[in-house]
Amino acid sequence: MQTIVAVVGGTGAEGSGLAARFAKAGVTVRIGSRNFEKAQDAARRIGDNATGHTNADAVTGAGIVILTVPLSAQVETLKSIRGSIAPGAILVDTTVTLEIAIGGRVSRILTLWDGSAAQQAARLLPGVPVVAAFHALSAEALAKLDHPLDCDALICGDSAEAKAEVSKLAGLIPGVRAIDAGTLDNARLLESAAALLISLNLRHKVKASGMRITGLQGGDHA
Amino acid sequence: MQTIVAVVGGTGAEGSGLAARFAKAGVTVRIGSRNFEKAQDAARRIGDNATGHTNADAVTGAGIVILTVPLSAQVETLKSIRGSIAPGAILVDTTVTLEIAIGGRVSRILTLWDGSAAQQAARLLPGVPVVAAFHALSAEALAKLDHPLDCDALICGDSAEAKAEVSKLAGLIPGVRAIDAGTLDNARLLESAAALLISLNLRHKVKASGMRITGLQGGDHA
Repeated sequence: MQTIVAVVGGTGAEGSGLAARFAKAGVTVRIGSRNFEKAQDAARRIGDNATGHTNADAVTGAGIVILTVPLSAQVETLKSIRGSIAPGAILVDTTVTLEIAIGGRVSRILTLWDGSAAQQAARLLPGVPVVAAFHALSAEALAKLDHPLDCDALICGDSAEAKAEVSKLAGLIPGVRAIDAGTLDNARLLESAAALLISLNLRHKVKASGMRITGLQGGDHA
Repeated sequence: MQTIVAVVGGTGAEGSGLAARFAKAGVTVRIGSRNFEKAQDAARRIGDNATGHTNADAVTGAGIVILTVPLSAQVETLKSIRGSIAPGAILVDTTVTLEIAIGGRVSRILTLWDGSAAQQAARLLPGVPVVAAFHALSAEALAKLDHPLDCDALICGDSAEAKAEVSKLAGLIPGVRAIDAGTLDNARLLESAAALLISLNLRHKVKASGMRITGLQGGDHA
């Protein structure tokens, strides 16, 4: 994949996990952070194909920008990078609307005015194709670079081309199957499914539950 | 299983699918309907172990009452049966809060004041242990009695004993694995996951997508 991928908030667990997987697959990855030193450290830990930048610098010239910050930082971060997003670039929102953003629980979700974090991102980035994806991919599982994941990547958005690009990216992670989950207003269902997995992690004392969709091939009963 | 299972709204696709599966597994099943004749017809189609009744008669003496009516009929139906539910009986709510209840789309969901259809049921049935379950099991797949399902049954509720009973029931359906999904206020996540599957059915032109949770065994990465 020729496209440069910027991971904004790339020093966090989810962001650095995704960045490491894409870099390993040969993608040029830019780790973005509010803190330049931390971005550089994270890129150094990943090694080949990864460099560290401030968030705004990371997204400049990137074809795909992946936002991996907590909900509490989503609006502010989007405002800080929107002037730097290249024309035609895709914004991939991975935000889950966890209640922890207002001091609540990690297994409960908030209802946003826009319906979902991804739609909130789209409102803040007029003209940028926004794709919601990667919510269900466990940071723990992503970090184990020698192990394939056992999880589907449900992807939604209003641009078919953008979804196809992000599906290709998802397919670079071993074990991950990309599934088209419809228009962007379905993002609330993907965000909610991720909260369900977090809740199952807590209840079953595991760290990397995932989700496989069955019966999509048609014809058969399941 | 000795317990009598009443399926309220058991003439619908989901209800008769569940009823047929449980009857086949040897459970005594009572099909309930507002329309006695329709209940009798549905029971006759199932055959062994199934009988047809009015809703109130069906739940009288049943140990497990499964509610399988559309959201638009949920409140009215619960009010019509609550006087007949036996002390100690469990109410299993399968309702998905689909927008179609107010003339909207089948792939979109409403937000209820109580948080979920199952919590709404619990409010209307004080003292009755309510369990949310079976939302994701496709009616199409249930109807194909000779085929195992390829779907997990996520089960939530505030009574551990009630969840254990319902898990046993779920385990009678070949291919179904019961998974404890926490307290009743998680029901919104299960209802939302069912809406996601409906949305995937529409987009991928299939009728029986399902969901498997991975990584619950612990230890491993996924």
